[in-house]
Amino acid sequence: MIRTTEHEVRTGGQGDAADVTGQVQAAIAASGAREGLATVFVSGSTAGVTAIEFEPGVASDLDRALETLAPRRGEYRHHLRWGDDNGSSHVRAGLVGPSLAVPFRDGRLVLGTWQQIVLLEFDTRPRTRRFAIQVIGE
Amino acid sequence: MIRTTEHEVRTGGQGDAADVTGQVQAAIAASGAREGLATVFVSGSTAGVTAIEFEPGVASDLDRALETLAPRRGEYRHHLRWGDDNGSSHVRAGLVGPSLAVPFRDGRLVLGTWQQIVLLEFDTRPRTRRFAIQVIGE
Amino acid sequence: MIRTTEHEVRTGGQGDAADVTGQVQAAIAASGAREGLATVFVSGSTAGVTAIEFEPGVASDLDRALETLAPRRGEYRHHLRWGDDNGSSHVRAGLVGPSLAVPFRDGRLVLGTWQQIVLLEFDTRPRTRRFAIQVIGE
Repeated sequence: MIRTTEHEVRTGGQGDAADVTGQVQAAIAASGAREGLATVFVSGSTAGVTAIEFEPGVASDLDRALETLAPRRGEYRHHLRWGDDNGSSHVRAGLVGPSLAVPFRDGRLVLGTWQQIVLLEFDTRPRTRRFAIQVIGE
Repeated sequence: MIRTTEHEVRTGGQGDAADVTGQVQAAIAASGAREGLATVFVSGSTAGVTAIEFEPGVASDLDRALETLAPRRGEYRHHLRWGDDNGSSHVRAGLVGPSLAVPFRDGRLVLGTWQQIVLLEFDTRPRTRRFAIQVIGE
Repeated sequence: MIRTTEHEVRTGGQGDAADVTGQVQAAIAASGAREGLATVFVSGSTAGVTAIEFEPGVASDLDRALETLAPRRGEYRHHLRWGDDNGSSHVRAGLVGPSLAVPFRDGRLVLGTWQQIVLLEFDTRPRTRRFAIQVIGE
């Protein structure tokens, strides 16, 4: 059984993290599957999906680390091409990736107690993000 | 339905990016599946798979960010072991990862308009890369 | 056919890498599937899963690169919140990610010759890590 649904979340711009674990768990429940794989995929090249302990400190620490690697106010060839200001967003998105696959069993994601699925906003302005949740299961 | 195919792409060495989105979309079409998951996996420990806006600026910006993290001409314990010169390649590959899973629906990948699936070359010389595309669908 | 099993591995603290390829290959064999997708997922927000050439030099080089990005003895807002000392672990885990999906065919993972599936320990102390291996196949 395969079931793909589309979702939206409003973000606050670069460094913001949105916990989407509840929506993934709800999609599994709605599918009726007891065992399988849930894939979260964000459609867009300036955001990412990963898992962290969802608390403001970790989200801020992660943003700061990415700032050392791809500074928001750095110089990017992408800027020269398009006149954009979000070269740092594209680099961060390429590194973190847009996709996370999490197995579930007995209807529950196999996450740790302090582990949540998050959509990370890398763009330099608030966005309404579209993401897909796909449940493959039985 | 599961269908796994092998593919090749010629790369130009560290920093090169190859857009394989068309090959993934073609593999979905050939499978006949309308809804499911497409996984791209590069066989090799000095390359990676992710999604970016595929234009030369972003590929170059990403390469430069990885250069700050794992400089091509840095010192690596991997070099001492094998006499290789591609320690930076191995580090970059471990960070980016070799695998990307993208859901599709109505026969179309749920990518954003400016979002492509890319194979990133991290090795210090041009390579012929083998990668698998696996379609799980119905 | 979907089969999810739970596994454990003892790690030596930050920078340690455990090769779990044999356990993934064994889970595929036990499932009887010949073609499909194997997903490895570590339950916990201070570890990661990726693929590298598994030799001590690469593991050490990767740890050193992550140290430049998220220094173990740096300052983290996560520390202020919980009195923890593993802010660097959370950042590294968020970047590398907890999940890796590898296709298999003819009962064999499509890995390169020098490419292994590894669980990376980012926490500042040795841990017993729980991880899931999920085989979707036919």
